[in-house]
Parts: sequence; C-alpha cells; structure tokens
Amino acid sequence: MTAAPPVSREAPLAMICGGGSLPLAVADKVAASGRRVVLFPLRGAAEGTTFDRYTHHWLYIGQIGKFLRLARAEGCTEVVFIGALVRPSIWQVHPDLGGLRVLPRALKAFRGGDNHLLSGMSDLLESKGLRLRGAHEVAPEILVPAGALGRVQPSERDRADIALGLDYLHAAGRFDIGQAVVVSGLHILAVEAAEGTDGMLSRIAELRANGRIRAASGKGVLVKAVKPDQDRRFDLPSIGPRTVEGVAHAGLGGIAVTAGAAIIAEPDRLIAAADRAGIFVVGVAPGGSA
Amino acid sequence: MTAAPPVSREAPLAMICGGGSLPLAVADKVAASGRRVVLFPLRGAAEGTTFDRYTHHWLYIGQIGKFLRLARAEGCTEVVFIGALVRPSIWQVHPDLGGLRVLPRALKAFRGGDNHLLSGMSDLLESKGLRLRGAHEVAPEILVPAGALGRVQPSERDRADIALGLDYLHAAGRFDIGQAVVVSGLHILAVEAAEGTDGMLSRIAELRANGRIRAASGKGVLVKAVKPDQDRRFDLPSIGPRTVEGVAHAGLGGIAVTAGAAIIAEPDRLIAAADRAGIFVVGVAPGGSA
Repeated sequence: MTAAPPVSREAPLAMICGGGSLPLAVADKVAASGRRVVLFPLRGAAEGTTFDRYTHHWLYIGQIGKFLRLARAEGCTEVVFIGALVRPSIWQVHPDLGGLRVLPRALKAFRGGDNHLLSGMSDLLESKGLRLRGAHEVAPEILVPAGALGRVQPSERDRADIALGLDYLHAAGRFDIGQAVVVSGLHILAVEAAEGTDGMLSRIAELRANGRIRAASGKGVLVKAVKPDQDRRFDLPSIGPRTVEGVAHAGLGGIAVTAGAAIIAEPDRLIAAADRAGIFVVGVAPGGSA
Repeated sequence: MTAAPPVSREAPLAMICGGGSLPLAVADKVAASGRRVVLFPLRGAAEGTTFDRYTHHWLYIGQIGKFLRLARAEGCTEVVFIGALVRPSIWQVHPDLGGLRVLPRALKAFRGGDNHLLSGMSDLLESKGLRLRGAHEVAPEILVPAGALGRVQPSERDRADIALGLDYLHAAGRFDIGQAVVVSGLHILAVEAAEGTDGMLSRIAELRANGRIRAASGKGVLVKAVKPDQDRRFDLPSIGPRTVEGVAHAGLGGIAVTAGAAIIAEPDRLIAAADRAGIFVVGVAPGGSA
C-alpha cells in the first residue's frame, strides 16, 4: 500500500490482463494518473475485451520469454496481474523458449491451489528483474471502502449472516479455494470453488427456481473476503456491476466484501445498479473471530 | 453401534422417509431381520418412491400430532429418520395441532444449519417418548466398510487428494454445511452446500464441458465425510449407484467415504456400476490431522 518510488512511477506499467472489466478499469485509473500502461491480455481469458486504446500484446500464458522481451523493450520495470483467470491446462500454455526454461518450476506451481500458481509466477518474474505490484497499489481508488456504498443498509439479520460467512471464509482460507460464500438465515447455501462467483450465484437462482432453496427472496448475503494469508498483490476478491446483477437474479438481499482488501470495478455503475435493485453493498472488516 | 435391546427389536420400527432409494433399502434390511417396519414418507421429499410393500402413512413434516398418534397406534417405540430432505419452507410444513404446540421450538430449529434442524426434531420426539435410532443401528450392514469396495484401487495421487478433502471437511464441519467436496491435483474444485452431492457432481461435468475445469478425465475424487461432531443417528453421508453415475459423468476417478460412518444404498449395484465405469470406491478413516 506504500506509494511506488518516483522512478518506477515514471516507467510504464506492464499489466498482464485476464478476463472481465477490471483490467481496463485499472488501466484507465493508472493512465489517468499520468503513467503509461502496456497491456498483455492473455489468450483464453481476455478475449471478450477490446484493448485498442492502449499499447497491447496478446500472450499465451506460457510465453514468458516474449513477455519479458516486450516488457523490457517498452521500458517496464513493474508488472501487475489483473482480471479473472481460468486455470489453464498445460497443453494450452504454449510455452516459448523462456517458458520452457522455467517449465519445471511452473509445473510445480500448477499443483495445489491458485495461491501456489500465482506465487510461483511472481517469484519467476521477480527473478527476471520485474517487480510485481498489486493493482490496488497502482490504483488505490479501486479498493472497497468501509461501510454501505449505496442507499440500502444491511439489517441485523444480514449482519449475522455476514459474520458467519466471514468466519467460514477465514476457516476455509488455508485450503486456497474460493473467496466467496452465500449465507441466508445463518445457513450456508453455497461455497465458491472452481465455478467462480458468477457461477455460484447462478446456482442459487436455479436452486430457488426448482424449490431446493425456499427462503424468501430478498434475504441472504453474498460474502466475499480476502484469504487470511493471501499475497495481496494478486487475486484480491472483486465485485462489479455484474455481481449486483447476479445477486439480484439469485434473490439475495446484498453483498458484503472485505473493506480495503477487495476491488470494485466501475463503482458508479455498481452503486447505481445496487440502488435500483434494492440491494445493499457493504465493506466490512475481515472475519476470524473463531 | 450397539445392538438394540431385545424388547425394542420386537416392537415395530417407525421410519420417517425422505427422498432417494435409501429408505426402502433400509426398510428391506430391517424387515429381513424379522422386525416389522411402519413407514412415514414425507410429502415434498419422498414422492418418487413406491412404498406399497410396507404399511405406510404419508405426512407433511409439520404433522407431528398425526405421526405420534399413528406411531403409537402401530406400537412403535423407536423411530429412524432416513433419506434426503429438502429444507422445507415454513409454509409447506402444514402443522397439525401437535405440530402447532411445538412450532416455536421447531422454528428456532429451522434457523442455522441442518444439524440444528435435525437435533431440534429429535429432542422433540424423545420428549414424546419415542426413541430416535440411527439407520446404521437398526441395519448395520448398510455402513461403508474400510478399504476398496470394488476392483479399482486409488493411486498415490488419489490418496493425497482424499487426505486434502478429509482435512477440509473436518475444518468446515463446524459450519454445518455439506459433507462432500471434489478434489483433483490437490485443488478443491467444488464444495457441496444446498445443491446436494448430485448437484455438485453435475456442476463438475458442466465446468468440464465449458472449459472451466481442464484437468484430465479420470482424475479427481469425490470425498464424503461425517461431520466431526455430528449426531450419527441421522444424516450420515450416503452413496448409491446414482453417486457412481454422477462421478463417472463428472469425469472423476473415484469416491472416498468415511468407513463406518457413511451409508451405502444398494451396495451390489453400486460396486457393479463402479467396476464397469473403472471408478474406485474406498472407505477411509475420517480426517482431522490439521
């Protein structure tokens, strides 16, 4: 969270971009602060987005040699990972020579959860002289603040559901699975793993439609939290306008995320959508009471 | 696990039946042991099954007065809960006078997880003079034995995935959510909550179909475990031929369940299906190492 030293503020920022609206939102913030960005959208993850307004180079995740060469040629000394990543199979990695050299290390990183994968990648980059930064370090305004973001406030019951969700996520954090859970009436209805938050919210909507969840609509909370010992330079939990849509479609009452340790893509659109849907969005302190 | 006293062996056994093939499988075992069974299939849960071969009385879950009256008239002194239960909404409970009297206590039991719900129900029945028994106490042959059940054995990698799954389920057990998880390559792919085991397995199949899971087919394990402090008289984890189908459809390599603390419906059909699909089914000691 400390400010970058002036020299690196001036050097362009390399951004390795996964899916979703977050990479461009962060690029816009960094560019607005006067720093040049060079984007590296990942094939198999970032195809839905148009990156034309910035210098960008498409990469397979295994093209580490190409990335290092281009990032150096652009004068980048710092790199940010941002956006959603589908766990790649080794066969879609397309390693180049630089990638092949580190393949044994990368393969080791692929075993185990996402934290292992990401910290393996960051060790690799740092060994090549690139400093890994968190998206919230280069664009602190994307962090979720504490308290209610829109007009709707959580009720006492919602607060009890939120506390249970945070407690669960704290206990499950060491297993390096999802960072999100749905709680209603002190009952955990869904736990996120490989399906992602949007997939989990669709499931709640389906379970409600076919009678497996019979709680009243407008109750229940999506709780997202940073893992207890997570490297915050990547993979902070994030919410965006689509999360609000998913929560509304699932018939839940609101969203709670860890303040200062989660990212909002497009806060203005998110708040407008939440107010329209009558859904609360609240930044809370992380759990861990029990 | 101790044998019932002779007196209660002779009195007919009341069985409150949820969904799935397990209730009839258990009724058959008990009847084969020479004990009469009286079935109480629950509306909204047990509709898919034909109970004609035994004395049976359909109930709404709130008809506690009707249940007590009928169970007494049939001479039952013990009751077993067995089969899958969808969490009912209060509006579908249809309480009778006996149910209304206990409604405040039942409502309290509805808040919180399934353990709360079930232990609330059992306290209630015991206060009315009916003894609650576990299905495995009246039909011990339904418990999963230790070791591989069919021809296929888990590999070393499968064993590592199983250990991680058991460790997770132990840690998450106090939250009273699902009893099952899917692990592949030391990565937790799915956690069961309100969707149930079949729902979770369908999700794995979907995630594989749309590229969100790219692990090779035939790897990964469904792990089901008893909760650490669970009242084993109800809601023991169970597997059946359908579980094998779901695991095969999800492209997983096998199933691990806690030996002596999980139930098999139709073991012969299950083992035949597993051998045919090349899937292992193994009874393991519960986790809790960390």
